[in-house]
Amino acid sequence: MTAIARLLSPRSVAVVGASADASKMTGRPVNYLLRHGFAGAIYPVNPRAAEIAGLRCYPDVAALPEAPDAAIVLLGPERAEPAIRALAERGTAAAVVFAGGYAETGEGGIRRQQALVEAAGAMRLLGPNTIGLVNLTDRITLSASGALEVGQLPAGRISVVSQSGGILGSLLSRAADRGIGFAKLASTGNEADIDSTDLLDHLVEDEATAVIVLYMEGLRRPDAFRAAALRAAAAGKSIVVFKVGRSESGARSASSHTGALAGADRVYDALFRQCGVIRAETFGDLIDIPAALVAGRRAAGRRVAVLTSSGGAGTLLADSLGVAGFDLPEPDAATAARLAALQEGDPAAMRNPVDVTLAGLRPDLFRGAIDALLESPSYDAAVVIVGSSALAQPSLVADAVVECQGRSAKPLLCYVSPHAPAITRLLNGQGIPAFTAPESCASVLAALQPRPVPVLAAPAPAAVPHRLLASMPSGPLNEAQSKVLFAHFGMPVTREVVAPDPAGTLNAADGLGERVVLKVLSREILHKSDLGGVKVGLAAEALPAAAEAMLDSLSRAGAPAPEGFLVQEMVGGGVEMILGFHRDPQIGPVFLLGMGGITAELLQDTVLRLPPLTRGDAEGMIAELRTLPLLTGFRGAPPADRAALVDAILAFAAMAEATGERLLEAEINPLVVLPEGQGVRALDGLVVLA
Amino acid sequence: MTAIARLLSPRSVAVVGASADASKMTGRPVNYLLRHGFAGAIYPVNPRAAEIAGLRCYPDVAALPEAPDAAIVLLGPERAEPAIRALAERGTAAAVVFAGGYAETGEGGIRRQQALVEAAGAMRLLGPNTIGLVNLTDRITLSASGALEVGQLPAGRISVVSQSGGILGSLLSRAADRGIGFAKLASTGNEADIDSTDLLDHLVEDEATAVIVLYMEGLRRPDAFRAAALRAAAAGKSIVVFKVGRSESGARSASSHTGALAGADRVYDALFRQCGVIRAETFGDLIDIPAALVAGRRAAGRRVAVLTSSGGAGTLLADSLGVAGFDLPEPDAATAARLAALQEGDPAAMRNPVDVTLAGLRPDLFRGAIDALLESPSYDAAVVIVGSSALAQPSLVADAVVECQGRSAKPLLCYVSPHAPAITRLLNGQGIPAFTAPESCASVLAALQPRPVPVLAAPAPAAVPHRLLASMPSGPLNEAQSKVLFAHFGMPVTREVVAPDPAGTLNAADGLGERVVLKVLSREILHKSDLGGVKVGLAAEALPAAAEAMLDSLSRAGAPAPEGFLVQEMVGGGVEMILGFHRDPQIGPVFLLGMGGITAELLQDTVLRLPPLTRGDAEGMIAELRTLPLLTGFRGAPPADRAALVDAILAFAAMAEATGERLLEAEINPLVVLPEGQGVRALDGLVVLA
Repeated sequence: MTAIARLLSPRSVAVVGASADASKMTGRPVNYLLRHGFAGAIYPVNPRAAEIAGLRCYPDVAALPEAPDAAIVLLGPERAEPAIRALAERGTAAAVVFAGGYAETGEGGIRRQQALVEAAGAMRLLGPNTIGLVNLTDRITLSASGALEVGQLPAGRISVVSQSGGILGSLLSRAADRGIGFAKLASTGNEADIDSTDLLDHLVEDEATAVIVLYMEGLRRPDAFRAAALRAAAAGKSIVVFKVGRSESGARSASSHTGALAGADRVYDALFRQCGVIRAETFGDLIDIPAALVAGRRAAGRRVAVLTSSGGAGTLLADSLGVAGFDLPEPDAATAARLAALQEGDPAAMRNPVDVTLAGLRPDLFRGAIDALLESPSYDAAVVIVGSSALAQPSLVADAVVECQGRSAKPLLCYVSPHAPAITRLLNGQGIPAFTAPESCASVLAALQPRPVPVLAAPAPAAVPHRLLASMPSGPLNEAQSKVLFAHFGMPVTREVVAPDPAGTLNAADGLGERVVLKVLSREILHKSDLGGVKVGLAAEALPAAAEAMLDSLSRAGAPAPEGFLVQEMVGGGVEMILGFHRDPQIGPVFLLGMGGITAELLQDTVLRLPPLTRGDAEGMIAELRTLPLLTGFRGAPPADRAALVDAILAFAAMAEATGERLLEAEINPLVVLPEGQGVRALDGLVVLA
Repeated sequence: MTAIARLLSPRSVAVVGASADASKMTGRPVNYLLRHGFAGAIYPVNPRAAEIAGLRCYPDVAALPEAPDAAIVLLGPERAEPAIRALAERGTAAAVVFAGGYAETGEGGIRRQQALVEAAGAMRLLGPNTIGLVNLTDRITLSASGALEVGQLPAGRISVVSQSGGILGSLLSRAADRGIGFAKLASTGNEADIDSTDLLDHLVEDEATAVIVLYMEGLRRPDAFRAAALRAAAAGKSIVVFKVGRSESGARSASSHTGALAGADRVYDALFRQCGVIRAETFGDLIDIPAALVAGRRAAGRRVAVLTSSGGAGTLLADSLGVAGFDLPEPDAATAARLAALQEGDPAAMRNPVDVTLAGLRPDLFRGAIDALLESPSYDAAVVIVGSSALAQPSLVADAVVECQGRSAKPLLCYVSPHAPAITRLLNGQGIPAFTAPESCASVLAALQPRPVPVLAAPAPAAVPHRLLASMPSGPLNEAQSKVLFAHFGMPVTREVVAPDPAGTLNAADGLGERVVLKVLSREILHKSDLGGVKVGLAAEALPAAAEAMLDSLSRAGAPAPEGFLVQEMVGGGVEMILGFHRDPQIGPVFLLGMGGITAELLQDTVLRLPPLTRGDAEGMIAELRTLPLLTGFRGAPPADRAALVDAILAFAAMAEATGERLLEAEINPLVVLPEGQGVRALDGLVVLA
């Protein structure tokens, strides 16, 4: 057994600093262990008590009769450190430190936390600044959370890891009111040692856990998270995450657009999607979606039947589902006939939502209608609306729904229209996901849709930088150098010639066409257009003078002297895109594809992916652009060369992989996608090396 | 007193079809009237009972001792009609028919409903198919809703008009659980006579009502709604609406893009915005926003202080507010000093969210912190987070918040983190808006922001069609005719000449520049580009041959013969936009402004406004475009001529007003906005006349 497994399922628990006064915070843990039915040994430690709650109390850790599996330390920062050292010396597997006053308070706290970690040595440490953990599978509570005051918390197959103790308590109490049970819950607090990914790792293996809920403020080990999430997906366990920090801005870079366009939070989005992790958009979804996933049913598609005995609530729900992109097709002929047979002469029953105002009063008819909808090939899922008529007879609705669910493999949800917590609890308790917000039903049905098996391979080990790089300097490369690197990996770039000075530009245009582009070439000038450093459509004979004029313009602007000039072929037509790579400070390398110009900048039409990129990823990135029609032949334009774009993305990714740790940023902007059969062309390029 | 006023506040009520059995639906209304304290006369009518609930029962309407102010009719469709006729004959002011089986069921029902309306004559009718109304101000219940089973419903200053009875019951029971009281609630059902706008009209005048909640499926009298909403705004009353039908698609038209781009639901959005009506985005907001508005406080801006005793909940709320565009500035120096004095040595107190983990345990310090934040010039509103520590002492938090609110005019909200319905009720009951979803706090603070006083004038009376129209045919006008109309009202259009045939195009280019545009001119060819009917950049001498080629191309495509050709000046540069007018089938005339091309079509960057348009509306339409930077000088481009664009929008609106009822659709696509000082130009135009 790992130390974390022993912490979550200890056979013995020491409670250091336990108080005999159950009303005190320090009196709670022993009290909760007993009340919630912990079957192992409890060792209170307190030099000023002989007995606590009928249990023998020990004066110090050294006096304990055995090395406990787990320990709770209820002491403040001054006294916690020696207690942790003593527990570690006794061979305790893991300890929880509840108190705050550590890294979250600043300088002094950071030092105290380091000392605590050193004192723990090989012993694992949860916290400090945590409300601990609760294992409802085995009825073990290592927590002082007031949420444990309630008598019996329902056990279930959802487990929670939260980086905030307050949020854990909020989820626990809200879910309990809804009749939703948990397996394990843990708050990681300051994560001095054990972090949320450690616990995720454990829960992936935990037989009692089917769905894992994460409340996340930040991720310290994205690669380990990624691996754990993929193992969860492989094991058929769903992960639902709520992550804060959504309004943080992206990494700024003077040299490329990619970081700012990517945005810190969108990189997390990409990570979650590629690992098969479901992201909750609202805090309510963080309970609602797991409550539905744990029922184990999945919808094969987006066609939903709504059964209602309240016309208004049916319309409301249908509207929310419609806004979220679900279809509510009318019953097919056979289903309509079954419904009509149930409810004579009421044409309202033949639409969707199916109105069973009359049948609702007769349980057999109500069951018949639910069965008809679940058995219909026209629907992938059904939602039954619980109206106020159910208030008087909650079990009438619940029994029918439970019975009908048993005869079908499709998801069956309930929307509870009036305030009726007892019915909601009853339904959830019997395995019928029941919700009180119409928007929740839509979020939940979205989470039940088929999702691709995540294919995100482990990040490639740091590559030995490619031999091409040996001769390349640190910092930004100029456009010609950057393109040499891109071209080496198969990226089609513009034909171009470097000229060292204005006079040299004259012959440079040979073979590049009647008219060409002239650019200054510089590692230091990042916005060359703004400084008059780009001219298009020049004839060869006009190049030297244009180059001289550029030098004048640069020198007037106080810009550094350029390394030379670039004479480039003109590329006409096509769709302008941006393809980039940058390193997110938290998550690491990420690729970005977007429409060029205003569509990327003003309208944020960009798609992110973490490496390694598969061909499927490259195709997916293209398909996810909102402006995809620009590539497929919008308004009579010829379809663009999507196959070549896929190849270009993969060439770019191969370049990034081969360049390894030395690659800080790379960007092709614009990357022009020409009509089908004509390929793509990198018109400009930038690489920044470490 | 109007009939509707007598219906909402009757001194006497007849209950036709009342049952002596209080457990039956027909037994409820008399029972509820008594239980909720109706002080007027109740006249049960039932030929088979002598007495109901201790009240004398009358055999029929004719036997009543007086003409009642209001009547409840509990009979089914067969017997309701004669009862309604009898009530009308007695001079009853208004009657409510609860039963369904009318227009909502199809053909036969529609006929029954017509007969019911005829039977009512001058008597006003609420329903049929309604759960009636509740007046909690005066403790009068004309309803059989099970929501009235609860003993005492709290009275308040929020009134509700719902087009669905089920939704009314849902709102009533949900709000009651939250401690939120109502003044009047009414469900309009099938709206055979009294519709939601009638009741809105009444509630605008109702002294007990400060905030009006509307649950809307559709609006039958948009002009009357508009007038009532403006009167509400003038009276300082807020209206909050939840409208379903959000996923309905827009009006399709073969001739213009405007209808499809506008979308049916977005026209409602425009109506609501222009009338100062707040639209609830989620069903939960429909309770949350009114609960905050009724407190009467408004935020002067978007700077919010968050006070928390739970770090996690503070972060969660801050994140939700950040996503919604609120600022959470750190405390200014003076405020920071006040907070520091309260909570010695805890640097966490100096950030925002302000963490008062320690102060939270001491009421005086907690009050001090709330006061400091509310008095700070850095904040426009404050949110206090109620954590699990408050579960044990709900009044400690509530008392402090209530007391501090009394010393400030700023909005003060509470976010309740754990499941704690008692605290939520306590707070709402004491006038502190309290919410259980972090997203609700953001919606609510958005609704409390300053909003412009609505200036939407009454729709202009149908104008006498302008004399120019006398000579114009019904149906689409061709481009030249359309532009003549636009130009007449001051819209700058391209210089152009009509040529009757290919030969005539040669001289038509005189004075239009070196190169010109050639177009076919036709009332019938709507997508002339697709048929090769547009060529740009032609020299004059190339025009006749190009025109011949166009004729060939059209005839090969089987297109009708054109009326001629249009030779047009070339307009280079500028930003392409679309400006349109169409008639929404429900709401009526609406203007649309959008960026041209893909930005309007793929990315839906369009803004709608209902007439009449003011200069402020025209400026506002431009300012609301997401791609506004394209007009202000994006990426070094020259700023566009916004002043000329405003004038052009007003010219377009003047055209629409003068054209009156004959104008079905109008569209300028593209409207090119040139650099500042160079004006705008209508490059193409379409008008469809009745």
